[in-house]
Amino acid sequence: MTRKGNTIFFKNSPRILSYAAVVGSKESEGIIGSYADIALADDMYGESTYEKAECKMLSTAISLAIEKGGLKQGDIDVLLSGDLLNQIISASFAARDFDFPFLGLYSACSTMSESMLLGATLVDGGYAKNAVCATGSHFASAERQYRYPLELGCTRPPQAQWTVTGAGGLVLSRKGGRIAIINGTMGRVCDLGVTDVNNMGAAMAPAAADTIMRHFKDTGTEPGDFDLILTGDLGALGSRILKDLTWEKGFDISANHVDCGEIIYKVIESEFQGGSGAGCSASVLNSYVLTKMDAGLYKRVLFAATGALLSTVSSGQGESIPCISHAVELEYCG
Amino acid sequence: MTRKGNTIFFKNSPRILSYAAVVGSKESEGIIGSYADIALADDMYGESTYEKAECKMLSTAISLAIEKGGLKQGDIDVLLSGDLLNQIISASFAARDFDFPFLGLYSACSTMSESMLLGATLVDGGYAKNAVCATGSHFASAERQYRYPLELGCTRPPQAQWTVTGAGGLVLSRKGGRIAIINGTMGRVCDLGVTDVNNMGAAMAPAAADTIMRHFKDTGTEPGDFDLILTGDLGALGSRILKDLTWEKGFDISANHVDCGEIIYKVIESEFQGGSGAGCSASVLNSYVLTKMDAGLYKRVLFAATGALLSTVSSGQGESIPCISHAVELEYCG
Repeated sequence: MTRKGNTIFFKNSPRILSYAAVVGSKESEGIIGSYADIALADDMYGESTYEKAECKMLSTAISLAIEKGGLKQGDIDVLLSGDLLNQIISASFAARDFDFPFLGLYSACSTMSESMLLGATLVDGGYAKNAVCATGSHFASAERQYRYPLELGCTRPPQAQWTVTGAGGLVLSRKGGRIAIINGTMGRVCDLGVTDVNNMGAAMAPAAADTIMRHFKDTGTEPGDFDLILTGDLGALGSRILKDLTWEKGFDISANHVDCGEIIYKVIESEFQGGSGAGCSASVLNSYVLTKMDAGLYKRVLFAATGALLSTVSSGQGESIPCISHAVELEYCG
Repeated sequence: MTRKGNTIFFKNSPRILSYAAVVGSKESEGIIGSYADIALADDMYGESTYEKAECKMLSTAISLAIEKGGLKQGDIDVLLSGDLLNQIISASFAARDFDFPFLGLYSACSTMSESMLLGATLVDGGYAKNAVCATGSHFASAERQYRYPLELGCTRPPQAQWTVTGAGGLVLSRKGGRIAIINGTMGRVCDLGVTDVNNMGAAMAPAAADTIMRHFKDTGTEPGDFDLILTGDLGALGSRILKDLTWEKGFDISANHVDCGEIIYKVIESEFQGGSGAGCSASVLNSYVLTKMDAGLYKRVLFAATGALLSTVSSGQGESIPCISHAVELEYCG
């Protein structure tokens, strides 16, 4: 059986051979600080623009993941990557640094799990031997693209989140490594009519609930089967909504659910609802979570990153926010 | 053998079950006019904004392709789609109209071939039974996002192209249909330093040459093996550069090469170098080309759409234009 419902089952359990994360200075003060490979002292990373700094973080995370897997550029068959910037310039320009093929993705903040789902499919089917999956974001580039120029010094409403400065990447391979991707649930677009661009958690929670519950159904699992049900960047408010939505349908995930955005910052109160951005789940997964899994501390993790598929144009035209969540199930296999 | 070099070989030859195209009024005056399913009399398509019109074209092309394949929404396992707008809002909002999963892609004007390459992989490996691949673009939404407000009435330089108003979609399936995808070559990012955003053909030609020549090498083919070597939107100038670049390396593709951008408009001179945009190759492939293949008039087609992975921000920051081309090989199998 290779598929049931929206879930793809991998016959050959593609492995996470290696992983790496590069995080910003603010991010390094929190839980992931001692797990990330590089913690920047300066978020400009020696570059002249925020966008170039974001690209360099992503490129570095990709290089590090390949190196940590004991591989060379020539061993990689394909890079699957995307990011939040218009025309995913971070990923496209990072791909310029490498000689292997590039498949560009866009799934907003659920890009990490989308890349893992597609990468695992390529490796599982023998279409690629080694595939790199990566994404990232930068507070300053996201802020000026999606919201206001930083120089304007706008205040943020209490339901807002803080875009994470960070990038993460991993290498999927047919063998090696102690963590396998055993299946993945493809997300559907969910739009319950939220139009508040400062409240992404509320907009994205229904998409996370939809994918997580479909995952339970397709795989015959229940919340207690997982050590961790890890969402991407719902934040504190969005996580509460997710727990409510799943509880209403008979699934109590409260004991196992953790949101990357909720745990990434040292003092979440200063960031209102917590972290967000494609780099949020990418940096938490590729540092703290995979290190713990590698040590056998988590045996089974459902990673469901969430994305809000809006643009400044769609919101300006009065549209609500379509959201999506792709999930992959990770298993420790010693 | 499932892969050699950058080329994936499909064991089960996924079929193109059905296809559909919706094109703008100007586009319908040319060669594809009598092959497209819907030719719009008004490019606003009854919507209030250009972006909403673009989204509706894409959604309609998807629905039509499903219907023409004798399928229902419930038969589709996944939609692979993307477009040129920031955060691919056309694809994401079109996906809201359907109940099946959505995998968002971004590869600029090579999105059609990237979606077919990944869709064919999913179908070939048994991960999806029916996958829809689709993309599109709209002259007016692209113009105001990438260039100038239409109201400004800017003149265009002679090396410019005209973004196609059109969308195309197709259904890939394990069986049915007379056209198979037998392999696909994943593109690498090529950047030879072109910075002129009005000369996309020159920027993209090296990426097309790279992918097409790798395809010949990986598959052991030569130009004469194909009835058609079809590029996406190089335009007249870009096509000439592609022919030169491949000729220099010992491949004479001049007898078999056709560029969608070069043939789409009735009088190419009025559009300078011809058509461009994700909708260019999508609408030409999903109307004229696949109809001719379906009738057995073309037996073997190499479809290599090309994408320029720039953004207004990257160009504003002085960056050159990274480009890519993904290719799929189509075969008539009666």
